[in-house]
Amino acid sequence: MKASELACILGGTLEGGDAELSACAGLEEARKGDLSFCKDPKHVKLVQSTQASAVLLSPDWSLGAPCPIIRVEDPNHACMAAAKIFAPPEPVRIPGVHPTALVDASVTIGHDVHIGPYTIVEKGCVIGDGAVIEAQVFVGEGCTIGPKTHIYPQVTLREGTKVGADCIIHCGVRLGGDGYGFNNGRREDGSVFIEKIPQLGIVEIGDGVEIGSNTTIDRARIGRTYIGPMTKIDNLVQVGHNVKVKGYSGLIAQSGIAGSTEIGYGCLIWAQAGVSGHIKIADGVQVGPQAGVPQSLDGSVKYVIGTPAESMKDFGGRVLVPKMLAKLKGEMKELKAQVAAKS
Amino acid sequence: MKASELACILGGTLEGGDAELSACAGLEEARKGDLSFCKDPKHVKLVQSTQASAVLLSPDWSLGAPCPIIRVEDPNHACMAAAKIFAPPEPVRIPGVHPTALVDASVTIGHDVHIGPYTIVEKGCVIGDGAVIEAQVFVGEGCTIGPKTHIYPQVTLREGTKVGADCIIHCGVRLGGDGYGFNNGRREDGSVFIEKIPQLGIVEIGDGVEIGSNTTIDRARIGRTYIGPMTKIDNLVQVGHNVKVKGYSGLIAQSGIAGSTEIGYGCLIWAQAGVSGHIKIADGVQVGPQAGVPQSLDGSVKYVIGTPAESMKDFGGRVLVPKMLAKLKGEMKELKAQVAAKS
Amino acid sequence: MKASELACILGGTLEGGDAELSACAGLEEARKGDLSFCKDPKHVKLVQSTQASAVLLSPDWSLGAPCPIIRVEDPNHACMAAAKIFAPPEPVRIPGVHPTALVDASVTIGHDVHIGPYTIVEKGCVIGDGAVIEAQVFVGEGCTIGPKTHIYPQVTLREGTKVGADCIIHCGVRLGGDGYGFNNGRREDGSVFIEKIPQLGIVEIGDGVEIGSNTTIDRARIGRTYIGPMTKIDNLVQVGHNVKVKGYSGLIAQSGIAGSTEIGYGCLIWAQAGVSGHIKIADGVQVGPQAGVPQSLDGSVKYVIGTPAESMKDFGGRVLVPKMLAKLKGEMKELKAQVAAKS
Repeated sequence: MKASELACILGGTLEGGDAELSACAGLEEARKGDLSFCKDPKHVKLVQSTQASAVLLSPDWSLGAPCPIIRVEDPNHACMAAAKIFAPPEPVRIPGVHPTALVDASVTIGHDVHIGPYTIVEKGCVIGDGAVIEAQVFVGEGCTIGPKTHIYPQVTLREGTKVGADCIIHCGVRLGGDGYGFNNGRREDGSVFIEKIPQLGIVEIGDGVEIGSNTTIDRARIGRTYIGPMTKIDNLVQVGHNVKVKGYSGLIAQSGIAGSTEIGYGCLIWAQAGVSGHIKIADGVQVGPQAGVPQSLDGSVKYVIGTPAESMKDFGGRVLVPKMLAKLKGEMKELKAQVAAKS
Repeated sequence: MKASELACILGGTLEGGDAELSACAGLEEARKGDLSFCKDPKHVKLVQSTQASAVLLSPDWSLGAPCPIIRVEDPNHACMAAAKIFAPPEPVRIPGVHPTALVDASVTIGHDVHIGPYTIVEKGCVIGDGAVIEAQVFVGEGCTIGPKTHIYPQVTLREGTKVGADCIIHCGVRLGGDGYGFNNGRREDGSVFIEKIPQLGIVEIGDGVEIGSNTTIDRARIGRTYIGPMTKIDNLVQVGHNVKVKGYSGLIAQSGIAGSTEIGYGCLIWAQAGVSGHIKIADGVQVGPQAGVPQSLDGSVKYVIGTPAESMKDFGGRVLVPKMLAKLKGEMKELKAQVAAKS
Repeated sequence: MKASELACILGGTLEGGDAELSACAGLEEARKGDLSFCKDPKHVKLVQSTQASAVLLSPDWSLGAPCPIIRVEDPNHACMAAAKIFAPPEPVRIPGVHPTALVDASVTIGHDVHIGPYTIVEKGCVIGDGAVIEAQVFVGEGCTIGPKTHIYPQVTLREGTKVGADCIIHCGVRLGGDGYGFNNGRREDGSVFIEKIPQLGIVEIGDGVEIGSNTTIDRARIGRTYIGPMTKIDNLVQVGHNVKVKGYSGLIAQSGIAGSTEIGYGCLIWAQAGVSGHIKIADGVQVGPQAGVPQSLDGSVKYVIGTPAESMKDFGGRVLVPKMLAKLKGEMKELKAQVAAKS
């Protein structure tokens, strides 16, 4: 799109020539074909060195730019509007079942449902109105998928999984795999045995949940592994069997929740953090990045960090330990000298 | 199922009215439609506040319940029996090759093998009796899959992978991807090169191994990456090229084993732990959650934790450091005062 | 293959009888059917106890072996040559579109392109000469795949993803999933809201990039998430939205880069390390295994380790803290005694 055309759409004015634009980018990342933006004169150096082909600036910007300028009242807002124009058009998933989809005759399909190519929906499933199940998805026997839920390609739902309404399940998510459970010991003859404990429960996902790419959520040993409403899960997260996430929480990338643990409302488990099994995290608690939580958190501390997890204050003290130790060593040396001098 | 019907199946007696039941759950997690259970009178408060629609209690329980009671001799055992009744019926995978499966004519297929829809089995593969290969699986050239092994949907086996008998491979597992290996340096003209080292080996999985969803195990650079018999691997685990896991070990969720490392018999690598490359972990050693093991462990310490990994005793001492330091500071202050007073 | 035949191919001489060989392995890992090798007489004990069926040794090795010997000038080099012979033959992906592949009529396909069975390529995609897209891959609308790029089975590219030339994308990789971004707060009536922030950008992968199994790279919020040329990414890595990896870097298994962070040229992010969002890692910096980087690194320290990440020297000091503390306690006790004695 021409900068002149875009200026027109955004209600701005173009200065300094025209340019062909195809994407938005920050001032530093921008390259030929990119539109960038700046609101604050303190970033003037970034403007001066940008490789962007055009830049959105406010009407009172008087510091120039090395490329065409589109003047608009609110450069941030205009950039968001431009980003929407440049975004790859969202694919339209027309209601209907693709001829290559294998949908069992017993499946109940709501109105305006899309089922993509090479997708499999096994017997007894129920799919709500307006749901989109993209290509190459596997939906095992007896699953329920709520209205307007969107399942991206190459997701698997093992038998009995229930997904609520308005959920978004990204590529490669695995719902309902067997939980990790084994009995082991030694037989009378001394030989070792390792026996699989049957995983008889299901996974149940509440309304408005989003689950990131390649995340895994195991079925319960008995009963259900539960992800409550509006919970937002990032990529590559592991949720063990019988975990209960009450709702309105976030689990950030590569974090893991071990079996039978309960995460309260409004919690945030940051990236690469781990929460042990059979414990409870109180409502509203945040577990910092890479933290390891070995025991229940009652909410008296709202943010924990480190392994084993502790308050920011305690963690901060721990970080300072080498410095404090060096200081103490110095004092010790001095005091020894004083004592020796008095002998 | 009606509580009355279930009581009959479990050989118990129903009190306090009937109810419709569809799942098992713990006293706290339970909601309408759930059956819960309690064995120990000390949990009486949980019984009194449960949302379950019925509860399994022992004949001598005299503390009542807010819902119908099914009295049985052993509530735990009865709940497991009920869980089996409520469990989603295990899908039946009838022997046979689905018409949409693409199985090369050269493949050797044993008796009673199931190959699901849209699954691909390339030339030269050998599939043992009673194996189940579910939908949308990719089995590359020359793979071997042992008798009674069960492969869930959307697994990929790259060429030459060998899987033993009685294995369970969960959704999204990747066996035989190239190991991470590159030569790099500078050419005479100063330019940087990064060259791929060919990954010429295979992955070999022993008998009775279970591998969790989205776990990745890389093919060897030369020879084999080996997972010994009865090893149980959880979800999202990374196993590098030329790793050897002798057998009867567990690798818990999100743990990682770097290339060419050997894990002894009966080891347990806990969640999110990392083991460096080219080292050996002795038989029976456990590596705690989030631990990082930089060098070989000879088995003189049976459980290590922390990064770099150390004994529980040493780790415990480290955790106490800030407290000990504060104590020492106090002593220092006092001693300084004493010394000063004597001047 | 017979050892005698192999000796002939490798230009070596066989001693001590013939053997059937099918793989290479190290002296300790080797078992029946394996060929091993040894160059250095100091490993004589490993040679004496190897289970290999034959071993490559140099002409001047005089310490014998418990199996047939193939004498060659350079045992290491000969073993690599043998590994190539034993390697599973690389599958041949003949140019052409498999009849079960669903390729939209609008797709531009270069010369000698292979598109495998059950693969889907949506409208507007452009695929370069010599590209290989294996089975069961999903390529969303408007994607670009460069010449000679190889995509293994069960990869997904969401709409608008751009992949350069000579890339290798392993099984289960997810490119272009939505980034993790939500606005949340409370409405006037006190109720909580969590709103998805549209993820309008794309993923762009430079030339010569390799991406390991089940790794996830999110599309940008606006603009692009960028992986620069020759970057080599291992398995199960997470790259957040709007991350920029300049190029010639390595991201090792299970590491994670949070949103909007920039990784310079020639960096190495080791296994299970985490880099926070909105920061910059200078060219050539290495982030050690399991390290956590909370803030930008300007390159003054070339290798960081620990959480929060620090120099090897500082980390080493921290590791020694308990020992230093114990020493200081001892000194304190002694000094107290001295002071007391003088009272």
